[in-house]
Amino acid sequence: MEPFQMIGKDVPRNDARAKATGTAAYADDLKLPGMLHGRILRSPLAHARILHIDTSRAEALTGVRCVITGQDIPQVKYGNWRLFPDTQDEYALAVDKVRFIGDEVAAVAAVDKDTAQEALELIDVEYEELPGLFDVESAMAGDAVPIHDHCRNNTSVNRKIAYGDVEKGFAESDYVREDTFRVHAVSHAYLEPCSALAQLDLDGRITLWTSTQVPYIVQCLLASTLEMRENDVRVIKPYVGGGFGGKMELRTWEFCAAFMAKRTGRPVKFTLNREEEFLAGRRRHPMTIHSKVGFKKDGALVAKDLKITLDGGAYNAMGPTATFLCGNFGAMLYRYPNYAFYGRHVYTNKPPASAMRGFGAPQSLYASEIQMNMAAEALGIDPVDIRLKNAQKSGDKIPDVATISSCGFTESIQEVARMSDWKKKRASLGPGRGIGIGCYSFISGGVFNWFNTQYPFSAAEVRAFSDGTVHLLTMASDIGQGSDTALKQILAEELGLRMEDIRITSADTAMTPQADLGSWGSRVTLMAGNAVVDAARKIKERLFGALSARYNLNVIYEMECREGRVQPKGRPDRGMSFGEAVAMVQKASRGEPLVARGSYTPRDKGLVTPAFGFGAQVAEVEVDRQTGLVEVKKMWTAHDCGTVINPKGVEGQLAGSIQMGLGYALSEQFVMEEGRTLNTNFLDYKMPTALDMPPGEVVHVETYEPEGPMGAKECGEGLASPTAPAISDAVYHATGYRCKDLPITPEKILEGMNAGGKKKS
Amino acid sequence: MEPFQMIGKDVPRNDARAKATGTAAYADDLKLPGMLHGRILRSPLAHARILHIDTSRAEALTGVRCVITGQDIPQVKYGNWRLFPDTQDEYALAVDKVRFIGDEVAAVAAVDKDTAQEALELIDVEYEELPGLFDVESAMAGDAVPIHDHCRNNTSVNRKIAYGDVEKGFAESDYVREDTFRVHAVSHAYLEPCSALAQLDLDGRITLWTSTQVPYIVQCLLASTLEMRENDVRVIKPYVGGGFGGKMELRTWEFCAAFMAKRTGRPVKFTLNREEEFLAGRRRHPMTIHSKVGFKKDGALVAKDLKITLDGGAYNAMGPTATFLCGNFGAMLYRYPNYAFYGRHVYTNKPPASAMRGFGAPQSLYASEIQMNMAAEALGIDPVDIRLKNAQKSGDKIPDVATISSCGFTESIQEVARMSDWKKKRASLGPGRGIGIGCYSFISGGVFNWFNTQYPFSAAEVRAFSDGTVHLLTMASDIGQGSDTALKQILAEELGLRMEDIRITSADTAMTPQADLGSWGSRVTLMAGNAVVDAARKIKERLFGALSARYNLNVIYEMECREGRVQPKGRPDRGMSFGEAVAMVQKASRGEPLVARGSYTPRDKGLVTPAFGFGAQVAEVEVDRQTGLVEVKKMWTAHDCGTVINPKGVEGQLAGSIQMGLGYALSEQFVMEEGRTLNTNFLDYKMPTALDMPPGEVVHVETYEPEGPMGAKECGEGLASPTAPAISDAVYHATGYRCKDLPITPEKILEGMNAGGKKKS
Repeated sequence: MEPFQMIGKDVPRNDARAKATGTAAYADDLKLPGMLHGRILRSPLAHARILHIDTSRAEALTGVRCVITGQDIPQVKYGNWRLFPDTQDEYALAVDKVRFIGDEVAAVAAVDKDTAQEALELIDVEYEELPGLFDVESAMAGDAVPIHDHCRNNTSVNRKIAYGDVEKGFAESDYVREDTFRVHAVSHAYLEPCSALAQLDLDGRITLWTSTQVPYIVQCLLASTLEMRENDVRVIKPYVGGGFGGKMELRTWEFCAAFMAKRTGRPVKFTLNREEEFLAGRRRHPMTIHSKVGFKKDGALVAKDLKITLDGGAYNAMGPTATFLCGNFGAMLYRYPNYAFYGRHVYTNKPPASAMRGFGAPQSLYASEIQMNMAAEALGIDPVDIRLKNAQKSGDKIPDVATISSCGFTESIQEVARMSDWKKKRASLGPGRGIGIGCYSFISGGVFNWFNTQYPFSAAEVRAFSDGTVHLLTMASDIGQGSDTALKQILAEELGLRMEDIRITSADTAMTPQADLGSWGSRVTLMAGNAVVDAARKIKERLFGALSARYNLNVIYEMECREGRVQPKGRPDRGMSFGEAVAMVQKASRGEPLVARGSYTPRDKGLVTPAFGFGAQVAEVEVDRQTGLVEVKKMWTAHDCGTVINPKGVEGQLAGSIQMGLGYALSEQFVMEEGRTLNTNFLDYKMPTALDMPPGEVVHVETYEPEGPMGAKECGEGLASPTAPAISDAVYHATGYRCKDLPITPEKILEGMNAGGKKKS
Repeated sequence: MEPFQMIGKDVPRNDARAKATGTAAYADDLKLPGMLHGRILRSPLAHARILHIDTSRAEALTGVRCVITGQDIPQVKYGNWRLFPDTQDEYALAVDKVRFIGDEVAAVAAVDKDTAQEALELIDVEYEELPGLFDVESAMAGDAVPIHDHCRNNTSVNRKIAYGDVEKGFAESDYVREDTFRVHAVSHAYLEPCSALAQLDLDGRITLWTSTQVPYIVQCLLASTLEMRENDVRVIKPYVGGGFGGKMELRTWEFCAAFMAKRTGRPVKFTLNREEEFLAGRRRHPMTIHSKVGFKKDGALVAKDLKITLDGGAYNAMGPTATFLCGNFGAMLYRYPNYAFYGRHVYTNKPPASAMRGFGAPQSLYASEIQMNMAAEALGIDPVDIRLKNAQKSGDKIPDVATISSCGFTESIQEVARMSDWKKKRASLGPGRGIGIGCYSFISGGVFNWFNTQYPFSAAEVRAFSDGTVHLLTMASDIGQGSDTALKQILAEELGLRMEDIRITSADTAMTPQADLGSWGSRVTLMAGNAVVDAARKIKERLFGALSARYNLNVIYEMECREGRVQPKGRPDRGMSFGEAVAMVQKASRGEPLVARGSYTPRDKGLVTPAFGFGAQVAEVEVDRQTGLVEVKKMWTAHDCGTVINPKGVEGQLAGSIQMGLGYALSEQFVMEEGRTLNTNFLDYKMPTALDMPPGEVVHVETYEPEGPMGAKECGEGLASPTAPAISDAVYHATGYRCKDLPITPEKILEGMNAGGKKKS
């Protein structure tokens, strides 16, 4: 490998200045003449039949322009799993039933927000209440009321993965243990609440500006629910203040904004408030994880039988994916010669769970990692050593599911142990202090085409100009993770240009090339990055061909784009500037501009992902043995994201992941009462703040991922998994309390210690 | 020819609803946060050296954010004749001299318009006045002060056209006459004053929304004057309220908005007021036309010697083109076996003349047509007959300049004579009534690459989707003439779709394909239309190929896109819907969207144009012999614009042309006093209104232009020429007053009648 020019550099983020100066316009910042403001009426009941809705009083209110209910709209069900229409279970507004407190019943558009809000109170809904089902056990009981018709035991999805012979494996094991873990729901808590603005143009087309991770998916599903043609709907993603999986579906307000814009002819904007986000927003799946695992005496894994029940809440949302992925992640990290997984996605009368950073991994890996530590202790092996013994390596296969390509897992474990001085600290930390380890693997985008897209998974267009600039167009969505910057870096590297030579237009479904599946599953760098490389290489072929002709070069000469020039490799004396080369190609095609399109779709890459990231994390904690309060003193991280495109960007992802992992482990949870979320603001929902962040050290264990652009793979989500098990293990090390039901609260620690947890002296 | 499906239909204009409902946003309607308002300080003197400018008092005014003069800006001269840099004679702000009253001296940007205006009054400019030159004769005098240095006799451009042997021709003629005609300046009087809004993005790029006919030209020249790279400047044309040639150059306020946005970091908007438009705006060239023409006894033309001096005002602007074109038009319409033209473009201290609807033709053809009528009378031949005898026909050549392809001129003369009952009325109209004829030919865009573009003259991209829609992208500029509609019709015809199946994005230099030279010279329908057809045909080839494979068709089968289907010709049973066919192509390329780019550049088409439009017009007038007031009773028009794409659109062009022709002939003129324009509002500048419009009849003499899309050619500008000579000839017929110096005022008529004009009784 030759050294990179642009890759691996701390390039400032594309959006940094706009955000820092306040000029960045988010969806709610947009204003159009004559714009109406929308509000949504939500169900006060967890489960009920709608008998009648009377909107007449609301409609009569001065300033109200439009009131709609489920009876007014095309009754088209939607959901991201378009490949299997049976899984599509949502209407934009409730048609017959409400299924959770906060379910969307009606919408009002008025001349201002206050009027719209007031009108909500004038809508009279007559309900027939049904029994609420608030946990998976009652929902799956034989006599439970079906939350959705025709869904047996309220179980909407069953997924299995199996290879080897689990029973034989357990029989051959020296040590077998079974544990049940429970993990809880947490909020994405993105700083920008959801917002969408729709405008009808006079030809009947809809433009929707929306805070989304998936403009293309929203375009398609919105068109289908409006009964319009896909390309009569244009979705534009303005600046987005975070998504973390919570903005990757078509949502009610997006539909209502568009539908009401069509009905009124006026622009309509909906912006949720924080209370709605907490009350009714998507959340991470709570799961009940039953894991049976068998080892040889020396710590070698033999078999694993994993059963996971997901509490999906009222609708499928991205639950089908999570159901499969938590089973996939159960088979990751370590070599399980025999493996069985059975996952069930169960409806309950709670706000729907869906994708959230890590997408099944934080839950599944919490169980794996804690159980691994428990087994290590039982077998008398150091947690680091048992991991090294079983760690997956390049070339490992999970039959029918995936093959591990690049893999820096072993090095990550070694590095994090070295950095943290693991052996010494694990042996010698004083009272109330503990150190613990957690590991992860994560996907770099998905292979399975659940959205049933007809287009490449990612696409890019590059237009090169004789002034030495290029224009990159892609539907990929920068939602704050920095993908616009990473894609520009990749293009700059490939074409030997500087960041300022590149204009980027992204995430506008009418103007950028079809298509991109959106920002989720840590797919953007690898997939959109590959599309950019594909387009750039086509540009280079044209440039190189023209240069060959101009200098009458022998066909064997390789050429390069480097430092703003196009030249035979290492021969700047024979080259010309990038812009001059573009002009030459243009002349050779009688003035036609030099444009190329590239794309990427993973093929022959199993069922899951083209590439896995890996890593390990060690947490050191101090636990106040009087109060049970946990202070995380330090986090060490070693991780393998392939080639690091932008170190500062990767560190930003890491910091964000640790923040989320801290909250997941220690402080965040929804306080629920009969399906009602009680903590609906940032005072009561205890998210870690900057002041709670521990100091940390990080080592990038760089590998070269052959399927990734310049060798890169995911770095955004995997790191959301190890923090909770590392902290949990450290708490155990400090207090003897082993947490099998997140979060780790002071009460649980004190209770666990009293119940006979190991007392370190 | 098979009958067209979409061509020739009265399709409603693309912009009609937006304009009718007031939702169409023009440049001045755009508002950005933090936007500043700009005003321009203009010279009160016609010709002066700038000794000193003191902006300190203006800068000190509260609310003023930026004040600039010619000393603050990159001193880069610009002008549309980029191929010949010598002709580029303008700075955005005066550097050393002012050259006309209204010349731009300084600019202010402030928090509101009033403050900016007030600041103008605080700028102190010290001038050294120079002698003003207000007519071409004094400007060309040997001792005249040069308005621009190094320009001999203030003559900036000389153009010649010559073929045959003029002197020999005159010697062989039976009848030779010489006349001098003077034509005056008139205003474009577009309803939307010029306006431009510039925004600096945080990466240092400029976006300019501007009321322009030529986004690409503005992009290039703005970049050069800002010393930026072309593609770091993005020009977007919003809705435009007319241009007529007056918005086809980079202008001061466009530069100042961009430069001041760069300097302040804030958006800056300039909008001219009507007074500025009249005081300092571009205008049609006044010309002095000396024409000597020789005939045989039977009316056959033998030779013409044409000498034209253009009063260019203070800068070249589009004068070099007008200089050539008035010579070209002098050789059009009739067969001149021997022809000589000598044109001179002369600087004077008046607002620059430039392109205006007709671009040299209204002036040149006024002289030709009037002189033809005078010769006809002298030779005792009917004006219609002498025209029929000499009329150009398909295949005629103007050596080195042009070849006439399609030509419906003879039919136009015949039709207009028939419709107007010419022979009878010419013989028998009562006292004070008259009938007169005028003819025209006009170009369908230019061939000569004076802008020195590196790109095709027009380009289009078509993206086809499986939902049966397509997206057309083109840099062509709809400035109110309806080109977006015409281009959609052309595409709909070619692909067998309906208007509502087509989304169009136009005139955004960053998003639409490079390039389009803009809307002028009646080039858009033919050139951009050809680019659209080119792209559409590439789409069809892909569709037809896939269909052939699917149905295993013999290679000889021709296929068609028709009524939303793709099928073997005439075999809808074997076809499929357009969307299905697109989906099939997409499958065949593994999901890659179906996209094609097309372009058009005229080649091997001489120096002028790929195709000429033709036509004839008859006016009937009644002249009040006491007051000299002329009332136009009726206009008959027969014209050949090739295939009529949109009849209502063509009629709109015709009505607008007659309105402008009426004003040119009878009422419009600038009242000037020592270089100062005195009539600077719509009360004093007498433009005909809707109430002044005569009834009319029109016949489209359709020909098929082989170089045009579906056989179409120009219809927008040619018709601006015949109205004035037709009215003038009718006034002569009614009163005996023959106007050789436009406009035809009541005073001139009364004076002419008294001086011995023929008195019809």
